[in-house]
Amino acid sequence: MPNAPHPLDAALALQPLGADRWQGHTHPDWGNMVGPYGGITAAQLLQAACLDPRRLGEPLALTVNYAAGIADGPFEITATPSRSNRTTQHWTLQIRQGDQICTTGSAVFAVRRPTWSAPELAMPAVPPAEQVGIETRTPPVAWPRRYEFRFVEGGWPDYRSALPEQPDSRTVLWVRDQPPRPLDAPALAAVADVFYPRVFRRRQRFTPAGTVSITTYFHADAAALAAQGTRPLLAVAVGRRFTQGFFDQSAELWSDDGHLLASSHQIVYFKE
Amino acid sequence: MPNAPHPLDAALALQPLGADRWQGHTHPDWGNMVGPYGGITAAQLLQAACLDPRRLGEPLALTVNYAAGIADGPFEITATPSRSNRTTQHWTLQIRQGDQICTTGSAVFAVRRPTWSAPELAMPAVPPAEQVGIETRTPPVAWPRRYEFRFVEGGWPDYRSALPEQPDSRTVLWVRDQPPRPLDAPALAAVADVFYPRVFRRRQRFTPAGTVSITTYFHADAAALAAQGTRPLLAVAVGRRFTQGFFDQSAELWSDDGHLLASSHQIVYFKE
Repeated sequence: MPNAPHPLDAALALQPLGADRWQGHTHPDWGNMVGPYGGITAAQLLQAACLDPRRLGEPLALTVNYAAGIADGPFEITATPSRSNRTTQHWTLQIRQGDQICTTGSAVFAVRRPTWSAPELAMPAVPPAEQVGIETRTPPVAWPRRYEFRFVEGGWPDYRSALPEQPDSRTVLWVRDQPPRPLDAPALAAVADVFYPRVFRRRQRFTPAGTVSITTYFHADAAALAAQGTRPLLAVAVGRRFTQGFFDQSAELWSDDGHLLASSHQIVYFKE
Repeated sequence: MPNAPHPLDAALALQPLGADRWQGHTHPDWGNMVGPYGGITAAQLLQAACLDPRRLGEPLALTVNYAAGIADGPFEITATPSRSNRTTQHWTLQIRQGDQICTTGSAVFAVRRPTWSAPELAMPAVPPAEQVGIETRTPPVAWPRRYEFRFVEGGWPDYRSALPEQPDSRTVLWVRDQPPRPLDAPALAAVADVFYPRVFRRRQRFTPAGTVSITTYFHADAAALAAQGTRPLLAVAVGRRFTQGFFDQSAELWSDDGHLLASSHQIVYFKE
C-alpha cells in the first residue's frame, strides 16, 4: 500500500478543469476556527499558477484576500495570466464555491537574473533551533498540528494566566512542516501565515480575529528554498498599530543560515 | 474663470462608463520615466471604488500590480465588488488600454468600529517639518514636483558625488502634496509610493528600476485623515533584501502628531 501523501501535498493536489480552472478541496488536517487555515488557501492559489504550463519564472509576490470563509468541501480556483513580459508574469486569482466568491488575489512570477545583491535587514540573534524546546501545547484547531513550533519569544498566550496587557506583540520562533517536508514556494506561502493574531499577544486574551488580506514577497529562488531542505525556518512577526477593529502584522521568514527567504504582511480583523 | 483643479483631483476625475467601468486619463503632471508615477495609478484605482455608490465603509487595504506601463492617453478602469459582508467589502481592480491589461489589483473596504486600540510602533524622533529645509533639487521627471520634500535622512542621491555603497537604504522625510491639499485616502495611497527606489540609496547610483507590486494598509478613518489637513506627513522607508533583480521596501506614513496613518510595502524590479 503506498504511503499517504504529506498533508501539504494532499492539499496542493489540484485537479485541472481546463481554461484557467482547478478543482481543490478543503482538508480536515488544515482546519481553523472558521474554514481552512489562511496559509493553506494562499498555498493552493499559488499552486494553481505554479501548475499551469504557461507559467514563467518563479513566485515573486502573492496577495490573498479572504473575502469569506470556505465551507468544508470542494472549491474551484481560477488562475488567469493577465500579462507577461520578459521578466515578470502577472496572475489574477480567485476561489469560488458555487456562485459565491470566497477568496480573491494576485500573484507575480519573475525570472530572476544575476544582479548586484545585498542583504539589509539582519537575522535576529537567537539560539539555534535544536536548543529551543518544541512546543507541546496544542490549540483546539487542526492546522497547528501541521507545524513544529519552537518559540523563542512570544509563544501562545496562556489565557488562564490573567497576564496584563503586553507592550509589544513580537513573536520569534523556529518552525517547520510537521511531518518535515522539503521547502518550496507553496510551503513558504503557507508558513507565512503561521503566527497567531498579534492582538492575542498584546492583550493576552482571545478575541474573534481573522486575516483579511496577506501579501508575501519571495526573496529566494527554487534552488535556495530546496537548499533549506527540512530544517526549521526562523520566523519573526510584529504588529504596528491596532485600531478600530483592525491591525497590521509584518513577518520575516529566514533560512537557518541567515538569508531572508520571504517577507510577509497582513491586515487582520479583530472584534472588541 | 474658475480655478484649475488641484493636479491630484484632476487625475482622480474619472468618468463613469457604467457596469463597473470608469474612464481615466494620464496627466503630464504625474509623469514618471516610463508611464505615470505608480502612486497616482494606485490612487486612481482606489478612487474608482470610492466613487461607486455600492461602496461600503472606508479603505483598509489596496494592492496594485504594475503589469505594464500605461501609455499617455485614456485608459479604462474596471472596479468590481466581489464580496461584501457586515464588516468588509472586497474589490477586484484592473486598468486596460485597448485589449491589453496594464494594471491589476484589489482593495478591501471596511466599516471601522470602536474596539480596544493601541499603537505599537512609535514615530521616529525627528525635528518638526518647519525645521527641515525644503528640497530644491528636482529629478528630471514630472511627478516629484507634485510633492514638497523635506528630507531628514536619505535624500536624493547625488549621482555625480561618487559616494561609496551605503550600508542601509533608510529614507526619512516630511512630505505633502504640492500645492498643499487636505489629506484623504486616495492622496495617502498616492504618497505611499513617494520614495525613490531603495537600490539607488544603497548603491548611490541610478539603475533602471520600477515597482512591480505595492500593498498599502490604511490605519485611519476619513475623520483622522481630514484632521491632518495640509500639514506634512512623516514618511519612512527601508529595504530588507536586494537579490537577483528585486528588492522589497516597507514604508510608514505618520500624522504630524504621531499616529501611524498607513503602512505600505512593495516589491521592486531593478536591472544589473
